[in-house]
Amino acid sequence: MSNRKKINVSLASGFRDYLVEDMIPREEMIEIIRSVFKRFGFLPLETPALERENILTGGDFNFNKQIFRIASDKKSKERLALRFDLTVPLARVIAQYPNEILKPFKRYQFGYVWRGEKSQKGRYREFLQCDVDIVGARSVLADAEIISLAYETMTALGVRDFLIKINNRKILEGLSEVVGFNKKMTEKVLREIDKLDKENWRTVQKELKEKCSLSESQIKRIKAFIGIKNSNKTKQLNAAADFVKKSKLSLEGINELVEIAGFLKKLGVPEKNWEIDFSVARGLGYYTGPVFEVFLKKAVAFGSVCSGGRYDGLIGKFGSVQVPATGISIGMDRLYAAFVEMGIKKEKKDVPKVLVLSFDKTAEFYTVEITQLLRRNNISTEIYLGSEKNVKGQLAYALKKEIPIVIFAGGKEFKSKTAQVKNLKTKKQKEVKKSELAVFIKKECR
Amino acid sequence: MSNRKKINVSLASGFRDYLVEDMIPREEMIEIIRSVFKRFGFLPLETPALERENILTGGDFNFNKQIFRIASDKKSKERLALRFDLTVPLARVIAQYPNEILKPFKRYQFGYVWRGEKSQKGRYREFLQCDVDIVGARSVLADAEIISLAYETMTALGVRDFLIKINNRKILEGLSEVVGFNKKMTEKVLREIDKLDKENWRTVQKELKEKCSLSESQIKRIKAFIGIKNSNKTKQLNAAADFVKKSKLSLEGINELVEIAGFLKKLGVPEKNWEIDFSVARGLGYYTGPVFEVFLKKAVAFGSVCSGGRYDGLIGKFGSVQVPATGISIGMDRLYAAFVEMGIKKEKKDVPKVLVLSFDKTAEFYTVEITQLLRRNNISTEIYLGSEKNVKGQLAYALKKEIPIVIFAGGKEFKSKTAQVKNLKTKKQKEVKKSELAVFIKKECR
Repeated sequence: MSNRKKINVSLASGFRDYLVEDMIPREEMIEIIRSVFKRFGFLPLETPALERENILTGGDFNFNKQIFRIASDKKSKERLALRFDLTVPLARVIAQYPNEILKPFKRYQFGYVWRGEKSQKGRYREFLQCDVDIVGARSVLADAEIISLAYETMTALGVRDFLIKINNRKILEGLSEVVGFNKKMTEKVLREIDKLDKENWRTVQKELKEKCSLSESQIKRIKAFIGIKNSNKTKQLNAAADFVKKSKLSLEGINELVEIAGFLKKLGVPEKNWEIDFSVARGLGYYTGPVFEVFLKKAVAFGSVCSGGRYDGLIGKFGSVQVPATGISIGMDRLYAAFVEMGIKKEKKDVPKVLVLSFDKTAEFYTVEITQLLRRNNISTEIYLGSEKNVKGQLAYALKKEIPIVIFAGGKEFKSKTAQVKNLKTKKQKEVKKSELAVFIKKECR
Repeated sequence: MSNRKKINVSLASGFRDYLVEDMIPREEMIEIIRSVFKRFGFLPLETPALERENILTGGDFNFNKQIFRIASDKKSKERLALRFDLTVPLARVIAQYPNEILKPFKRYQFGYVWRGEKSQKGRYREFLQCDVDIVGARSVLADAEIISLAYETMTALGVRDFLIKINNRKILEGLSEVVGFNKKMTEKVLREIDKLDKENWRTVQKELKEKCSLSESQIKRIKAFIGIKNSNKTKQLNAAADFVKKSKLSLEGINELVEIAGFLKKLGVPEKNWEIDFSVARGLGYYTGPVFEVFLKKAVAFGSVCSGGRYDGLIGKFGSVQVPATGISIGMDRLYAAFVEMGIKKEKKDVPKVLVLSFDKTAEFYTVEITQLLRRNNISTEIYLGSEKNVKGQLAYALKKEIPIVIFAGGKEFKSKTAQVKNLKTKKQKEVKKSELAVFIKKECR
């Protein structure tokens, strides 16, 4: 095998490795997020990465082109593909186990999703999503809970400057009545409006005219509507209600936002952390009610780091009954990238506390024994396993890895049943009895 | 969209959902495993689920048929496939970042892997693996560390009756010299020997004769060798050394096991939890030294729940330098299935502590406020969001979900700034002041 040609080592484009210095803060973030999810009473559920293709595409035909399909051999009857989100698989699960799952059902899921988009610079094709969904709750209190959870999660992660933008698909769905365009054009119109966080109004305006055949006055009316702003949310909602009064559906949407605003107050979500933005449409086709997007004010360029909404129609596509549902998805990768951009320190908190040096082959067993003693006392400990024979080289390893404490346990220490403990920060060294070693090190590490 | 045909909801064959009652203990297991990994000084790293196909197949051509390939459109230049283990991607990472990663490098990774095998009953195609590897350590102390970690992990998970079987590929690689067959046949012979935990000797014997063209006396010799047992491990190793004395490589392998045995003693791995079994070959082609497999004595039928070994040649296939490495992989799904079989209780420990009932629409805001108060005090709390209007139905929900405490906070309680707290286990109910609620409930939950 040795004469085989070397394999070119590079990642597939659009994919990333997360090395240790990224993984330590990421794992910490996940633990924080999970603890908030639990505090709200959400419970874990996991679905496979691969689903039957018609399950995935059944949810939203817009995604048809963007999924990774598995190459099928002649024998296989099933066409499989990689999930592109965690919501469609959840809807499949709910429909598949109509009796086993007690409703309302509050589940969380951490999982990778894949999008087979053409890879381009800065665009990735694998994402870690942290999702929560409430299934079987019709009240917009459930939506308010989801928004409150987004607020609590961001706060728990140490973010202060963020904004939750809220809208309601019902309001937008009624726009055809309000503005007077063909109802069938609604989906196309919303897709254009949804682009507003990335593209400017001129571009969107052009598309509304050319792709959606809207007149200039219709476009003007849309612009006027989605631009309704007011720092006083009651006034903003009143103005919007007045604007859309021709549409019963739009008015229903506005009333739901009024209700949500009331709940958010009681849920302790500060006014400054949320706003109503009538231009939020959300790309995915399955939303039917309130929708939400979270932006970091100091890293707006990353887009929404967290988004979701109500999708009362999705589960019914898979099952015999319609089940209302609402939820949100935190995009870990975007959020982490934004954190890095904002200068969040990559701490090496989880690096081992102790490195036991290995410099005396005749006393190797004692070195091992000391290592094991510390581990059994729940002190994360590494024994030096590399090729550096001398102490200097091994100390350099400890310093590079930022391990705070090194231990010398050679033949001399074996005889006296002791160990030399050196704190690499304070530079102090002390001889400690083996029987007192664990306690001593725990104190040193505090 | 409503007149569209319903989509058949079923999972792709060979895949599973993990519903809440399975996920709660699984997440607990993962946390325990992670804490042991950290105690040994391992650090996290993550690689993508998809890799370039030649990276994956380059590791071991035997796997060629068993990977899931991504269907490629005409435009894509890369052929992608889903990883079948976490070891080959690790080797790729090590070769790709020769300078960024400080060695010895001890990493852990939790991740799904996929095998495109023909699905059959009880055989799955998606697995969660928990891997640890030590990269850049030539000493068999590293292998002993891995075995010690397997011991500590099983113990931490509450398993007592398990056996770590240890062997060394070097011993087996030398068998052609010892027994006198064509060296080129070694891989085929080992693959047959590897089947012994699933198939009986007669079947293997037949294959050794027919597929590997071994003579009866050669097969007899192999049988005699792999059958060398002794409760005294020193005697067992001496007998084996005598048997294989013709092969320098085999003897080297035996000597490594002698060394490992010494380390295991110092690492506190009890004699009863490990044995040397010369029939352990490990299917994957990349192993080059000590190999290990862990079996649960009360669930032997599940096969090894954890396995690994040394693979000093794998990284060199991807990079310019050979880097020694050893590691182990815990198969979460098999381990969990075995735990369920052995009757490990599925506890609902992580279910929310409190359900705040929702029965008084006029006081809904107070209900929400109470919920939020508890959550901010770190008590996992659910507010009833379902369609049951009366208290009885909501209580039934709490009982089914095994939530221990329910709270009544309606108009009456709002006026007196109190809440009624009912413990569903003791059946006792008490009126508690809002200001004392969190403290009271924390006491109740202890």
